[in-house]
Amino acid sequence: MIKVGIVGGTGYTGVELLRILINHPQVKIEVVTSRTQAGTAIKNLFPSLRGHLDLLFTKPTLENLANCNIVFFATPNGTAMKTVPELLKLGIKIIDLSADFRLKDVSVWEQWYGMEHACSDLLTDAVYGLPEWKRTEISEASIIANPGCYPTAIQLGFLPLLEAGIIDTQHLIADGKSGVSGAGRKANIGTLMGEAGESFKAYNASGHRHSPEIVQSLDEYSNDKVGLTFVPHLVPMIRGIEATLYAKLLQTSISLEDIQTLFEQRYINEPFVDVLPLNSHPETRNVRGTNMCQLAIHSSNNNIIILSVIDNLVKGAAGQAIQNMNIICGLPETTGLMGVALSP
Amino acid sequence: MIKVGIVGGTGYTGVELLRILINHPQVKIEVVTSRTQAGTAIKNLFPSLRGHLDLLFTKPTLENLANCNIVFFATPNGTAMKTVPELLKLGIKIIDLSADFRLKDVSVWEQWYGMEHACSDLLTDAVYGLPEWKRTEISEASIIANPGCYPTAIQLGFLPLLEAGIIDTQHLIADGKSGVSGAGRKANIGTLMGEAGESFKAYNASGHRHSPEIVQSLDEYSNDKVGLTFVPHLVPMIRGIEATLYAKLLQTSISLEDIQTLFEQRYINEPFVDVLPLNSHPETRNVRGTNMCQLAIHSSNNNIIILSVIDNLVKGAAGQAIQNMNIICGLPETTGLMGVALSP
Amino acid sequence: MIKVGIVGGTGYTGVELLRILINHPQVKIEVVTSRTQAGTAIKNLFPSLRGHLDLLFTKPTLENLANCNIVFFATPNGTAMKTVPELLKLGIKIIDLSADFRLKDVSVWEQWYGMEHACSDLLTDAVYGLPEWKRTEISEASIIANPGCYPTAIQLGFLPLLEAGIIDTQHLIADGKSGVSGAGRKANIGTLMGEAGESFKAYNASGHRHSPEIVQSLDEYSNDKVGLTFVPHLVPMIRGIEATLYAKLLQTSISLEDIQTLFEQRYINEPFVDVLPLNSHPETRNVRGTNMCQLAIHSSNNNIIILSVIDNLVKGAAGQAIQNMNIICGLPETTGLMGVALSP
Amino acid sequence: MIKVGIVGGTGYTGVELLRILINHPQVKIEVVTSRTQAGTAIKNLFPSLRGHLDLLFTKPTLENLANCNIVFFATPNGTAMKTVPELLKLGIKIIDLSADFRLKDVSVWEQWYGMEHACSDLLTDAVYGLPEWKRTEISEASIIANPGCYPTAIQLGFLPLLEAGIIDTQHLIADGKSGVSGAGRKANIGTLMGEAGESFKAYNASGHRHSPEIVQSLDEYSNDKVGLTFVPHLVPMIRGIEATLYAKLLQTSISLEDIQTLFEQRYINEPFVDVLPLNSHPETRNVRGTNMCQLAIHSSNNNIIILSVIDNLVKGAAGQAIQNMNIICGLPETTGLMGVALSP
Repeated sequence: MIKVGIVGGTGYTGVELLRILINHPQVKIEVVTSRTQAGTAIKNLFPSLRGHLDLLFTKPTLENLANCNIVFFATPNGTAMKTVPELLKLGIKIIDLSADFRLKDVSVWEQWYGMEHACSDLLTDAVYGLPEWKRTEISEASIIANPGCYPTAIQLGFLPLLEAGIIDTQHLIADGKSGVSGAGRKANIGTLMGEAGESFKAYNASGHRHSPEIVQSLDEYSNDKVGLTFVPHLVPMIRGIEATLYAKLLQTSISLEDIQTLFEQRYINEPFVDVLPLNSHPETRNVRGTNMCQLAIHSSNNNIIILSVIDNLVKGAAGQAIQNMNIICGLPETTGLMGVALSP
Repeated sequence: MIKVGIVGGTGYTGVELLRILINHPQVKIEVVTSRTQAGTAIKNLFPSLRGHLDLLFTKPTLENLANCNIVFFATPNGTAMKTVPELLKLGIKIIDLSADFRLKDVSVWEQWYGMEHACSDLLTDAVYGLPEWKRTEISEASIIANPGCYPTAIQLGFLPLLEAGIIDTQHLIADGKSGVSGAGRKANIGTLMGEAGESFKAYNASGHRHSPEIVQSLDEYSNDKVGLTFVPHLVPMIRGIEATLYAKLLQTSISLEDIQTLFEQRYINEPFVDVLPLNSHPETRNVRGTNMCQLAIHSSNNNIIILSVIDNLVKGAAGQAIQNMNIICGLPETTGLMGVALSP
Repeated sequence: MIKVGIVGGTGYTGVELLRILINHPQVKIEVVTSRTQAGTAIKNLFPSLRGHLDLLFTKPTLENLANCNIVFFATPNGTAMKTVPELLKLGIKIIDLSADFRLKDVSVWEQWYGMEHACSDLLTDAVYGLPEWKRTEISEASIIANPGCYPTAIQLGFLPLLEAGIIDTQHLIADGKSGVSGAGRKANIGTLMGEAGESFKAYNASGHRHSPEIVQSLDEYSNDKVGLTFVPHLVPMIRGIEATLYAKLLQTSISLEDIQTLFEQRYINEPFVDVLPLNSHPETRNVRGTNMCQLAIHSSNNNIIILSVIDNLVKGAAGQAIQNMNIICGLPETTGLMGVALSP
Repeated sequence: MIKVGIVGGTGYTGVELLRILINHPQVKIEVVTSRTQAGTAIKNLFPSLRGHLDLLFTKPTLENLANCNIVFFATPNGTAMKTVPELLKLGIKIIDLSADFRLKDVSVWEQWYGMEHACSDLLTDAVYGLPEWKRTEISEASIIANPGCYPTAIQLGFLPLLEAGIIDTQHLIADGKSGVSGAGRKANIGTLMGEAGESFKAYNASGHRHSPEIVQSLDEYSNDKVGLTFVPHLVPMIRGIEATLYAKLLQTSISLEDIQTLFEQRYINEPFVDVLPLNSHPETRNVRGTNMCQLAIHSSNNNIIILSVIDNLVKGAAGQAIQNMNIICGLPETTGLMGVALSP
């Protein structure tokens, strides 16, 4: 059994890790930490876990975590980087769901996250945990930088097009839409139901923290410096991300069927990327609670349109983290991740 | 492996049966019928099942069902009763999620459902499938009348009080609230999001079809003719039922702690009834996607207040049906039903 | 023109007062205060007011308010009572939307609100601002205690029955349901969309602050000490309250038609209470944004069932406050309050 | 008083016309027709209108409409064109909220709407009712083709940029998002709350009926043949459209401030277009129930990003129709349209 610890278990990605790990056949949940809730029964904070988990939250001390094989960080940005170096010395593998290890360029990271990085020397060791791109590196990594939610949905949509070199890399547009759970479980007026319910808006239209993360990857896919415009939007629902991606084809001779085949081939062995038939429109509810990304391809006016949906808390966070854990531990990648979407 | 068939696979209870049965370790889904969708791939109607199920809908013929051990009816009221007699002759066990076999008194049934019953002689054979009440009878039954959603939430709340004989049976009040999926997946103005969203209302306040079903059971629990007032309400959400039950204590000497103990004892061995600690308020989201009923007990002004929540599509329909199947087939009752609630 | 001030303009009742007062033909909005937002343009906090209001928030000083004829308090409980005495000395009339002046018994108030009352001598002067009950007193009052949202919906339902003396006063049940705006516009995990969305729950089932307010009025209606059980619930929507009220008829000879007539007569001259025809089910959306209370009457098992809906922010708060202002100022009571419900 | 008739009063645009016209000081609602509901009291179908309107639905006969000055068509596409010629002969002015008169090229119309046009000779007479573009022509028109909801939000965003000739007309992208009321009040599985709630999806990504309407206008603004990619999406809310528009600047020397000034100047006299300050993010709730379009401007990677929000039922339908009526009748354009947004 893999002994896992979760640092920061009181947020949405924390409880989502627990939801999935509870039924993972190879995992023993060893410790779940929370600075503020130490001593509280986890099931008292999350009655959805009653009957499944009888642990208490504990303090996030090195001692409490020392017995783990894998530690997940489900903490705000800037927390993991302070503890990771010491955990690594104990031989513990790290899967960080925050942004601390996602960017290779520390100056870009410090600019967007507004603080000094505590262990920038580890950034080169950290492997970006998108299995569809970095499976081999993940299997050998000590630190996984688990991708952000928007970046996952957007990268999986652009990846085949950029690898194939068939689109204009300078005019990529990603129109992203996320449910409110993406903003986390913290007291905040903006995500009150009275503010975010029955309304729709763009936010951070002039620049979002996930942009440099996305661009860093797209640059690599294309061996180029891409030009990306990314506008995120808030949807009055709890879970789900949809990204509508627009790219110009370099050659008009490429048919929609060619693109469809390109995507199907690229993802033919991927258990968690599902290319829908032509003329499909993926819905976030059809991947709710699952680690699946559903993609569909359309075209209009010489633009390729990619529609990409994920559950932001699963493939966009906890599920992908567990997929990465499975890879690291040599388990079948789908272990514990084959639940069917809760739809409706 | 148990070979199961589902008659009427295009509604919400049908797809919910599929969601759960797909990961049931002892089940092979043999056939899923639909008059209107025969020939269509199930995953095309329900893309949430992509990667999990490759069957087509077939016609609901005897021939197509003959190979099953268990047949679930997820059909509108009045459909199962036409086919069940022939299936029984083939030795197939029936679990009917509709109302066709729930009432023992055929005249009451015909009054509420507005049609003649096609096989009223089978009503005495049919066992009411509330495992917490009829576990032994279920294990030996050929026809299970799977309880309605409101009736499940309400009965589990009143059951210990009525069995103990400590409340005034003549003044029972059940204020029920249901998400819109209770109205089914059929074209209907009243449950459009434009009509049911961002609004709340009572409906059928002068009498709802589930009343006689509830009263029939409460009468038996109490060995009495109970007086019940039941008002259902429509909640702008998809899944979940909450019932707030009010009953007068016959003796003021009984403390809230006594009642708490009564409930805990009554349900101590029940895997799917969870009595929350005193002062709790169950939320429908904490049982979303699960077969659990969470109960909490309060008192005010000499009334006992029972709060009861279930997922109407699981413990209120498909999950309870599979729980009944497990009992019939001699499997551990929780087999395939231990998923954790999707919360948030 | 009536010069009005609003103390505490950053919450939902504050902005709702502004929404209605902006189009009130006899009102000049003189000052809107906020401790935290003083100096900010109101339209920057509430872009829904752009083009309608060009004021800045100011500090809640006596000087800033001195020029007003009427001051509305849309502040948290415990704030109005500190300033009201000084404003009264200036001859300003007060309409307090908080709970500070609602209870006549100061010890009950202090018990439920957990603080010492700052001007308990004024409690007898304060008039409870339910126009359907206290119209004359309101017209002569200096301080209006504007009723709570649940109390408004519940009192208007019970009032005719209790005045007529035809129900058992000892077993009144009020099952209340409110949208999330009732919890106010303040950072709070419990009313995040991720917590309150797509879920339903009871809260404060063993006792809610609005109970003593309701009971105080019901006692007066009935000239008795009533026994009330009140359980509030949270609905995943923004606006609206529905209350389902249960009462036992003392005499079985009274027909449903009699009760209907009783209600229609009681409210025949009330512009904001609308008794729906028999067999109706009022929906909160049909009063959204309006000052209307819609009522419907049903019966079951010798219980009378009253269904009552209001918009919690209008008839349950800002609209009723303006109705009270109209009465105080000798204006037609419906002035500024005849907008049609926004439905759907 | 203007005597108005509404043909097709049972849908969302019909009831929205009623909501606004009821409080319009210069309008008398003469007749509201419905084939299916003739004889029914309107308030029985729409209890939100109780106390405001006492008409019955009548048959849509010429006789019933003959007394009107203005007739609004709130009918499905293909209905108005059958009756309009006869009404014109009676000297009645027509405001058609359907698509029957929006396209100048009848062959394009017939291709997208799948039927033969019944009076294509009138297409040249019909004036496209976007007041910000065609105010003078509207004032003299006999038939107004009231713009679609998406087209309104999208055109108001692109208009200043195309008139100024500063963007690449060949690569316009409009990512549109609409609440479910855009699909109308008709029985339909796809817009059940159980289907459309808590989910997000694109639809008609390869081509939507509103595309030719939008392109027809954009061509005129730019004196060019534009290349537009338009992808609509369904948002789990009732009202509101947001459009995020992407366009490439032809010259990099134009600053964001220049664009802001361009927009402010273009719309300086427009009562219903509100250009928000730089760095704003318009929210649909801030225009809910109003005729306002709120716009904001951003830039990223040499793209101009325009954010545009309207209430699809008001500025996208009924409100704009009444704005057009005001223009035709020589009234101040804002008459009856100055209600404040219902927010939250």
